Amino acid sequence: MEIGRFIYKDEIFYGIITGGDKVTVLEGEPYGQIMPGSQVYTIDQLKTLAPCTPTKAVCVGLNYRDHAEEVGYPIPEEPILFIKPSTTVIGPGADITYPPSSIQVDYEAELAVVIGRTCRNVAIEQAREYILGYTCGNDVTARDLQRKDGQWTRAKSFDTFLPLGPYIITELDPGNLSVELRLNGETKQSSSTANLIFDVFTLVSFISGVMTLKPGDVIMTGTPGGIGPIAVGDKIEVEIQGIGVLSNGASR
Amino acid sequence: MEIGRFIYKDEIFYGIITGGDKVTVLEGEPYGQIMPGSQVYTIDQLKTLAPCTPTKAVCVGLNYRDHAEEVGYPIPEEPILFIKPSTTVIGPGADITYPPSSIQVDYEAELAVVIGRTCRNVAIEQAREYILGYTCGNDVTARDLQRKDGQWTRAKSFDTFLPLGPYIITELDPGNLSVELRLNGETKQSSSTANLIFDVFTLVSFISGVMTLKPGDVIMTGTPGGIGPIAVGDKIEVEIQGIGVLSNGASR
Repeated sequence: MEIGRFIYKDEIFYGIITGGDKVTVLEGEPYGQIMPGSQVYTIDQLKTLAPCTPTKAVCVGLNYRDHAEEVGYPIPEEPILFIKPSTTVIGPGADITYPPSSIQVDYEAELAVVIGRTCRNVAIEQAREYILGYTCGNDVTARDLQRKDGQWTRAKSFDTFLPLGPYIITELDPGNLSVELRLNGETKQSSSTANLIFDVFTLVSFISGVMTLKPGDVIMTGTPGGIGPIAVGDKIEVEIQGIGVLSNGASR
Repeated sequence: MEIGRFIYKDEIFYGIITGGDKVTVLEGEPYGQIMPGSQVYTIDQLKTLAPCTPTKAVCVGLNYRDHAEEVGYPIPEEPILFIKPSTTVIGPGADITYPPSSIQVDYEAELAVVIGRTCRNVAIEQAREYILGYTCGNDVTARDLQRKDGQWTRAKSFDTFLPLGPYIITELDPGNLSVELRLNGETKQSSSTANLIFDVFTLVSFISGVMTLKPGDVIMTGTPGGIGPIAVGDKIEVEIQGIGVLSNGASR
């Protein structure tokens, strides 16, 4: 199932995409039982928003070996966590905003996991049951501030620094999906979730052992090698196999 | 004004405390115009909850010189930020839970700033207008995991690791308030907000220059020297001049 979040006139709603271009409006949120309503739109009538509204995005650093090497950090023994606040989230087509305090804002293509049910202390074997689905994410990072602060939070927390979308795909095996980033059409990152040091289910278990995860919360699984800077006016596309393409611009 | 959040039977509400023991129930939330209703309780009829429900707590590290020295970090040139998720918040009287993955959980007494209005890019001179008030906070930290990870998020993000309360005090000059922590009645931290490296208004300006702050969001202003471990069964009290005492237990 393909679940999106949309706005039509002033109304925001979740919907299921069928036949490529039809959107059936859901009653309420897509957590728990999914209840399709009677209203149907064609997708070009609607503006697509980020497909969920996380209370937090819990992000994993250095989860691909080649990325840890390119930024000069050791390979972690346990997942290294940081949090992007809800205020970082933007949807497909929205612009990443360059903050005045940074001169190097980088893209980071990542598989994003969307939590479906409240959970705490989930075993790896049960993790799948708490996942609603998967979408594309971009862990936008002010690289200069990340280096300066040592702690990563400021560099990762500017408004607009978490593009998510386009849709949540619910039936997907996250074990071996190609992850690609294109900057103005040129491929800059190209890897597979098979190269994750800590896989999706391990991450859900580990993170839920620290904090309660809520429906709509997002786990960002880490970025592969090939990170680099965004310039104002660039087109940034994250494509993940079986999910689709998340495209964003960049402005000041 | 003294604003609290309470539960009576199954109903959760905000209230204003008057005469030391009367609680006038508010209509809605205390952001924007404060509207007292007609229902009044005595405080011992009610259970006191954390006085706000932040979407995020933005915390400042190393903001007292003596604390930076005791943990061996350099004095920062700009505020060092990290985020505690909403799931860390507990109220007065609730227990801090020792996670199985840590053998050293520390207290950190801090002045907590409660945001009153949505804000972004606030000037230092205007910061006061966006603050609802102040309360006591405890930035509970798994010190061993903080050292291990390098990044502080995991160590700071366990459920129950952000005691807040007891109430929000709205008319208070945050410039020179004594901040004290008592462990089983013995004073362990004793300083003043006059010793903050970056003061409250500078922090609101700096943080709102990174991310949008929402009503109820909390800024934790940093802890003074004297941090140390909590044991199961301990009584941990944070007392801030003009605010009151936040008391919590610790259990497994």
